[in-house]
Amino acid sequence: MSDHLNKIAARMSHIAPFEVMEIQTAARALEAQGHDVIHMEIGEPDFATPPQIIAAATAALQNQKMNYTSALGIMPLREAIAQFYADRYGATISPSRIIVTAGSSAALLLTMGVLINPGDGVQMADPGYPCNRHFVRAMGGVPDCIPASAAEAYQLTAKMVTANWQPHTRAALIATPSNPTGTIVTPAQIAQLHQAVSAKGGTLIVDEIYQGLTYGVKPTTALAIAGDMFVVNSFSKYFQMTGWRLGWMVVPENLVREVEKLAQNLFISASTPAQYAALAAFKPETIALLESRREAFKQRRDALIPALKRIGFQVPVTPEGAFYVYADCSKLSDDSFAFARKILHQAHVAVTPGKDFGQAAPEKHIRFAYTQTVERMLEAVDRIERIL
Amino acid sequence: MSDHLNKIAARMSHIAPFEVMEIQTAARALEAQGHDVIHMEIGEPDFATPPQIIAAATAALQNQKMNYTSALGIMPLREAIAQFYADRYGATISPSRIIVTAGSSAALLLTMGVLINPGDGVQMADPGYPCNRHFVRAMGGVPDCIPASAAEAYQLTAKMVTANWQPHTRAALIATPSNPTGTIVTPAQIAQLHQAVSAKGGTLIVDEIYQGLTYGVKPTTALAIAGDMFVVNSFSKYFQMTGWRLGWMVVPENLVREVEKLAQNLFISASTPAQYAALAAFKPETIALLESRREAFKQRRDALIPALKRIGFQVPVTPEGAFYVYADCSKLSDDSFAFARKILHQAHVAVTPGKDFGQAAPEKHIRFAYTQTVERMLEAVDRIERIL
Repeated sequence: MSDHLNKIAARMSHIAPFEVMEIQTAARALEAQGHDVIHMEIGEPDFATPPQIIAAATAALQNQKMNYTSALGIMPLREAIAQFYADRYGATISPSRIIVTAGSSAALLLTMGVLINPGDGVQMADPGYPCNRHFVRAMGGVPDCIPASAAEAYQLTAKMVTANWQPHTRAALIATPSNPTGTIVTPAQIAQLHQAVSAKGGTLIVDEIYQGLTYGVKPTTALAIAGDMFVVNSFSKYFQMTGWRLGWMVVPENLVREVEKLAQNLFISASTPAQYAALAAFKPETIALLESRREAFKQRRDALIPALKRIGFQVPVTPEGAFYVYADCSKLSDDSFAFARKILHQAHVAVTPGKDFGQAAPEKHIRFAYTQTVERMLEAVDRIERIL
Repeated sequence: MSDHLNKIAARMSHIAPFEVMEIQTAARALEAQGHDVIHMEIGEPDFATPPQIIAAATAALQNQKMNYTSALGIMPLREAIAQFYADRYGATISPSRIIVTAGSSAALLLTMGVLINPGDGVQMADPGYPCNRHFVRAMGGVPDCIPASAAEAYQLTAKMVTANWQPHTRAALIATPSNPTGTIVTPAQIAQLHQAVSAKGGTLIVDEIYQGLTYGVKPTTALAIAGDMFVVNSFSKYFQMTGWRLGWMVVPENLVREVEKLAQNLFISASTPAQYAALAAFKPETIALLESRREAFKQRRDALIPALKRIGFQVPVTPEGAFYVYADCSKLSDDSFAFARKILHQAHVAVTPGKDFGQAAPEKHIRFAYTQTVERMLEAVDRIERIL
C-alpha cells in the first residue's frame, strides 16, 4: 500500500462521521452481549412501510419492467405529488416543477450542485441536520452555521439572515419541522425569511423532510409563499419509506432543466420499484393509516417530555413536529457526549449527544427520538433516572 | 421570478445534457405519431430483471422491514459479492473492502469525493462515458480527456498516462469493457497502467460496470492485480437491474472509513429492497439465465457488425464486451449528429451520435446499442441502407 493513498481530498477533513452511528454500533454490541437496549438514537420511524405501499411495490414487480425512468421521475408520481399539495396544502404546483429523487439526500446534493460555487456560503441554523453542512462542503461551499437558541426556537429568523449575510453568502437553508429540535417555522416567518434572502439576492432553501409530522399545528408548505425557492421533501419520514431511498424536490420553473441535467449525470434516475411503490402513498387508506401513526407520535411526545422534565432535563421549546426532543441536560451533566455514553452503558438506552448537530452548545444537549412505544420510552426514562 | 435565479453554479456550464436522452424523446414523439421506431440508443439491456431477483425482492417485501441499512450495505450482500469474486475471478477480496452503493453513479461520486480536490485532474480516454467527466466536475476537478483512437482500441495506455501526466493530475480512470466502444483493457495492460499511475503517485480508478458481458474473452477483474485501486461495479448491466439503482465499489482497505463517512452523509444507504433483491443475483440459476442472455448479446454483436460494414460503416476494432458498437460513419456522413437525426426521422432507428462521448472525432462516430433482437437490428440496418 503506497503513501499516495493518504492523499485524500481536503473536503474529507470537514466531513464528520455520524456520532449516532457510533452510538448505534455500541448499542448493537451491548445487545449481542444479551442486554436489552432501548433505541432512541436513530432518526427513523419504528413503523413499517404501510402495507398499501408494499402491495403496490409487489404488484409493480410483476407488472412493470424495472428500467431506468426519466431523470425527473415517472409522470404519474409527479402528478400525484402535485395533487397532494393541492388537496392537503391548497397549493397549486405544476408537476413540471416536481423532480423525484433518490431520497432527500439526492435532492439536497442537486440543490447545492446547481446553486453553490466553491467558496459560496449557505446560512443554516446551528443546531441542525449534519448532512446539510456536508452537502454544501461536497460542492466546495461553506456552511455558515448561525447559532440559534431556544429564544428563536433553534431556527433562523429574518433578522439573523440579514445580520449575518456576507459577501460570499449565496443561500439560506431552513428545516421545518427541524431535526434535531422538532421546532417549526411558521408561514409568516418563512415569508419574512424569503423577503430577507431575496433582498440580498440569495435563494431560500426549505427542507420539508418531516412535513406532515406535526402535532397540534396544521401542516403547511413554503411552496404556498413563493415560486423561487428550492423545497426538498422525502418519502422517508411521514410516509415511512426510509430504506426505499425516495424523495422529491420542487424547484423554480426556470431551473428545472438545470436540475435535470445534473440529475441525469449524477444519478441517472431514482429507484423504479420505489417510484411505483410510492404511487400508493397518497391513497386515502394509506393516509388514514399514516394519520393514526401521527397521532401515536403525538401521544409519545406528550408522554416523553414531562417524563424527561421530571428527572431534570429541560425542554425550553416544546417541539411541534418531527419525532425528536432536543433536551437540555445541563443540570445533569456538563458533557453530553460523556453523558450519552454513560446512559448507553449504564442504563442501556441509546440517545444522540448534541455533537452531531453543530457547535452551538452541543455539550448541553441530548436528542431523544420518540420512535418507541410510550411504555418503552417511560422505561427508558426510569432507567436513566436510576443512574443519575 | 427574480434575476438572482440565473446565478447558477459555474460547474453547470460544463455539464451537458445526454444527447441520447434528446434522441429518445424525439423517438417517443415519433412513436406517439404511430411510427415504429427501433431503439438502439439507450445503454440499457432489453432483458427484464431475472425472475429469481424479482422473487427475492417480493419475499423481502413481506419478510423484512425496509429500514435504512449500514452505509456500507448489508453484510450478506457484501459477502456474496466477495464470494462471487472468488468463484468467478479467483480473486480474494475481503467483504470489508466492498461498499454497496446507489448504483455505480454513487460509487463514482464517492470515488471522486474522497480523492479529488478542486483543480485536480483525472485522466480518462476520449471517447468515454460522459458522466465520468461530470463526476469529476461535480467535485471541482478537471477531466483530462485524452484522445484515444482505434490504434489503442479507444483506451488509455500506460504510455499515454505517463506522457500526459501533469502536475495537477491525481488519478487515471479506465473502463473495461468500455462504453461507448465495447473494447477491453487486458489484465497485462491494467498492470502496466497501474504501474504508470503509481509511479506518478496517483490512483488508478477502474470502471468494471460492464464486467461479465464479454464475448470470446474470459471476464477478469483489476482487483486481482493490486489492492490500492478504486474499482466500481454495478448490478445494472450484467445482472440487468438498471432501475433498481444498485452498484458497489471496492476500495483500498485503509480508505473504507473515509468512503463510509462520505456515503453516510451523501446517501445514508443504498436501497434496501434492491439489496435484498440482489442477494439472488449470484445464485447458480440466476447466473445460468444471465449466461444465456450473454450468449444472445454475442449473437447480436456477431450479426450487427457485418451488417453495418455491408452498408458502409467501419468498425476498426471489434468490440469484445458491453453491448455497443462504436461505428465510424465517415464514409457515409461528415456530421454524425445530423446523420443520427436523419436516421431517426427518415429510417425510424434511434442511435446515439458521438457527441455524447467526447471531443475525439465525435462527428465520425455513431454508437449502436445491440439491445434488440437480431431480427429487429437487421431490419434497422436495412432501413438505414434505404435512406443512404
